[in-house]
Formats: sequence, structure tokens, C-alpha cells
Amino acid sequence: MSLPERVTIWEVGPRDGLQNESALVPTATKVAFIRRLVAAGLPVVEATSFVHPTWVPQLADAAEVMAELGDEGRGMPVLVPNERGLDRALELGLEHVAIFGSATETFAQRNLNRGLDEQFAMFEPTVRRAREAGLDVRAYVSMCFGDPWEGDVPIPQVVEVGKRLFDLGASQLSLGDTIGVGTAGHVKELLQAFAAAGMTTDQLAVHFHDTYGQALANAYAALEEGITTFDASAGGLGGCPYAESATGNLATEDLVWMLNGLGIDNGVDLDALVGTSVWMAGELGRPSPSRVVTALA
Amino acid sequence: MSLPERVTIWEVGPRDGLQNESALVPTATKVAFIRRLVAAGLPVVEATSFVHPTWVPQLADAAEVMAELGDEGRGMPVLVPNERGLDRALELGLEHVAIFGSATETFAQRNLNRGLDEQFAMFEPTVRRAREAGLDVRAYVSMCFGDPWEGDVPIPQVVEVGKRLFDLGASQLSLGDTIGVGTAGHVKELLQAFAAAGMTTDQLAVHFHDTYGQALANAYAALEEGITTFDASAGGLGGCPYAESATGNLATEDLVWMLNGLGIDNGVDLDALVGTSVWMAGELGRPSPSRVVTALA
Repeated sequence: MSLPERVTIWEVGPRDGLQNESALVPTATKVAFIRRLVAAGLPVVEATSFVHPTWVPQLADAAEVMAELGDEGRGMPVLVPNERGLDRALELGLEHVAIFGSATETFAQRNLNRGLDEQFAMFEPTVRRAREAGLDVRAYVSMCFGDPWEGDVPIPQVVEVGKRLFDLGASQLSLGDTIGVGTAGHVKELLQAFAAAGMTTDQLAVHFHDTYGQALANAYAALEEGITTFDASAGGLGGCPYAESATGNLATEDLVWMLNGLGIDNGVDLDALVGTSVWMAGELGRPSPSRVVTALA
Repeated sequence: MSLPERVTIWEVGPRDGLQNESALVPTATKVAFIRRLVAAGLPVVEATSFVHPTWVPQLADAAEVMAELGDEGRGMPVLVPNERGLDRALELGLEHVAIFGSATETFAQRNLNRGLDEQFAMFEPTVRRAREAGLDVRAYVSMCFGDPWEGDVPIPQVVEVGKRLFDLGASQLSLGDTIGVGTAGHVKELLQAFAAAGMTTDQLAVHFHDTYGQALANAYAALEEGITTFDASAGGLGGCPYAESATGNLATEDLVWMLNGLGIDNGVDLDALVGTSVWMAGELGRPSPSRVVTALA
């Protein structure tokens, strides 16, 4: 079984990481964080989210972050939950947005305040207008493996949701194990089901959380299925490992260590990245949950 | 690629875990820990080490632990560094010992005070006398992937050391990534090299440390190579993740979560195990580094 020669790490620390940290990080720190991630070689840095500040106060300064980044930030993806979020991205001249769908009814109701089917009607004008304006659109599919209320999520249901989001005009799906319960065999089955439904590996990304320690093993399983885009969060930002509900993202450094060992080109300067995460941990006032950061710091 | 239907978890928490914890755990606590691990369904619990207390003061009460366990402990493996250690195991009527060899010259010198070649002369009478007395012997091979002084360890060298230890009379080799630097492809190459040298999967076990977050991904890679014996440490005992030199073992709970997800029979009652690790973390006065323990506690 041959693994990909090269992968793209989609860095979500400034968005998915910081939105799940309790600390309110100053705008200037976020901008410095993003710039350091780019300087460390990360090819894609998802910068922020234009979600309503009532829901995610940590990212209430999204417009300020993007304004400060200016031309540097133009190609960076930002999350837009709906048309109002898209409007803000368009005003700033951004080129890449992401929407955040749900693979389950309960999470759609709780996160989007809509049913599983109704989410497509909400996303349709957002994606259409973004594509008409020449923007790339990524579609996150959350709860692809398990759902805290529904338990196991049937693979055909995930494939159907993913396909429908893709057919709206997204260029890539990011399949998320939002609560981190999935294991390597489940990852392979899901990816094989998407392949059987006609989707190619470059149309798919994987997004693992390390809640149950499975994130890197799952990433390895996805590599074996030919996946070449991996979401990860610098320093494992997005959930303290000692918190009651540990929901940290896969740490970018731990992923890079594995990729380097496998000889898979990823473009990241690991020392620079670890330095960035150590600095960010200082800003947040707690150690990084990344094993590599802990070992090399 | 089909995975094994059933695996054996070789629990090393009371030995490899506790010997690397700074706390001195009372004998009664160790005995209670071992009993709880057995009650949680762990089929093999390596109980302690008859190493000289100067080197491992944490396990200075090895004889007391085994005396307290009595018949319960007779089948439990104990580490014996040399003939003096074996004598103590024989006096207690134990049935299973383990020796601890090195795949590298520098670690042999530092850990055994002998050269790479000379270790075999030291182990020969230990293994021979153990076998003559009807005991099973496991041989650990440490530094199979990297060595802190020598860097990468050549695979042919590891295979040669392993084969020589096996040929002395060991029934199983435990291939250890003592410093946790190995990655999944390296694991596969090493296991394939042992297979090419005529060793069968039941003669091999793997022993991963999570220093760089690779332990579970490496375990998955070993499963794909047909390995059915996995060393792990309850709660990830053996190195605080926040210590300067994090050297924690693969947490048994994180391994069990993966095995359960893969549908691989392992006999462990995860809730009972997590309860044991939470209790032990309280005894040690620090949280468990296991993600599963953190999530379920």
C-alpha cells in the first residue's frame, strides 16, 4: 500500500483552536499567531470565523483580524455560517470561505437551529453567491463518526450529507470527527464509502479530534486511503487535555512528526512551528497538549 | 488487509510505569493496583522488577509485592536483569520472567554496563537456568527505533540483536521504541524484517512510548502487520506529559478504545480500567495523561 508523497496540512488553530479556548486572545496576538504559522510553512491557515459574536465571543474580532492581515489574509479561508457571514467576507475581498454543516439531525438542530435537510436550503445561497463571486468554498461536515446525542452515525447518512454539500458547489469536504470517538477502521470505511459514491481523494479532507487519543492513528488510516489534506491545530489548540470535556484538535506538530517519519512532504518547519506553539501556550497561560511540543520545548 | 481478531494486552503499568514515576508508591497500593488490573480483565500484568534498588528505588519492594500476591502472582511476569534477579524469582516460585536487552551499543553500555555483544553472554545463563526451571522468558529489546546518543538505529542491527536474544531461549521479543521517536512506516519495516528473518507474529510484541504522540498510530501499523501482543500502561503511567522529558507509555485505555472500535477482542473492561487509573492518579497526585481516562473520568 503506497502512501501519498505529499500532503497539505490545513491549519485550523486560529479558528477551530481559538474558538474552543476559554481565553479571549487579543487581536494583535491572533494576527501574530497567523503570521508565525505562515512563516513556519503551513500552506493553508484558516484565519477566523464570521460567526455571530454571541455564539463565539472568542472570534468576535474576525473583521479586525482580517483587516489587519490585509493582502496577506486574502487567500486564507474563513468560516462563514450563513449569507451574513459571506457578506462580510466579500466586503473584505476574501477569496476562500468555509461553511459548517452537520451530518446529524440533533447537531443540525443545536448548532444551526435547523433540521438536517433544511441546512441545505440555508447553505445554498451562501455557496452559490460565493461561487458566483469567484470564491472557493470548503464544506465542513461535523459529527461524521459519532454524535453525543445520537451515538453512532450511519455511514450512508454521512455520505449523503457530504454529497449534497459538495453538489451545492463546495470544492472540498472536511469530514470531522467532532467528538473524537472514531477509530481507524471506521475512518477507512467512511472514506471508502465516499470513494464508492464517486468522490476523489482531492475532494476530501479529514478533521480529527484527539478526545480519545485516536486522532493520529486515524490520520494514518486516512493516509492509507490516499487522503492528502489533513486538518490540524498548532499545539493541539482547542481543548485543554485536563479539562472535563477534552476536545482538542489533532496537534499539527504530532502530525508533522509522523509525516516526516513517513517521508511525506508537507513543507512545515517543525522547529518554527513548535516555537510558535510554545509562545502561544505562554499567551494562553497553559502548556500545549501536543506531545511533540512537550518533548521538544 | 485483515487485522487480527483477538489481541493480548501485556500490561506494564506496575513495572515500566511505576519505575518511571517519581513518586514512591507504597507496597499495599502496588498490590491493590495489580489486583484491580487483573479484575479489569488484563490477561498479563507484569508485576515488578528484581533490579537492584540503587538503580530503581521505586521498585525496591519487588519481593514484598510478589510475596503479598502469593499464588495470584505466580504466573505474572517480572523483570530480572541478571542471574541474581532470577534467583529471587526462583525462590518465590514464579513462572515467567523477562530480560531487558539493548539494540544499541551506547544504551547497552549505559544500561547494562556492557557492550552490545557482551550482553548475550550475561543473559545466556539467566535464560538457560530459567528455561531449565520451566519458566517462560520474554526478552525486551530496547531502543529499536532510535537511540538518544546514536540517532536512528539500523533495522538489520535490531533484527540481529532480537534474533540472538530469541535464540538464547526467549519465547517472545518485545520490540521497544524506548524514546518514542518511531513512526508507522518504520514500525512496518522493522516487523517485516523480523518476518523475513523467520520470526512469526506470535513471537513478537511491540512496546511503544508516546513521547512524540506516535504510540497509537504505531500500534495500528503493527496490527496491520499481524502483531497480536501489545504492551501498554494503564493510564499512560510512566511519564507525566508535562514533564521536561515526557516518556509515557502507550496508555492501555487509548489502545483498548481503538481495539474496541476495530472490533478486536481484548477482554478488557474499559470502565473498570479507567476507574483503576483514576484511582491511581489520585495516589500519585497528578492527572493521567491518557486521553480516554481524561475524557471518561
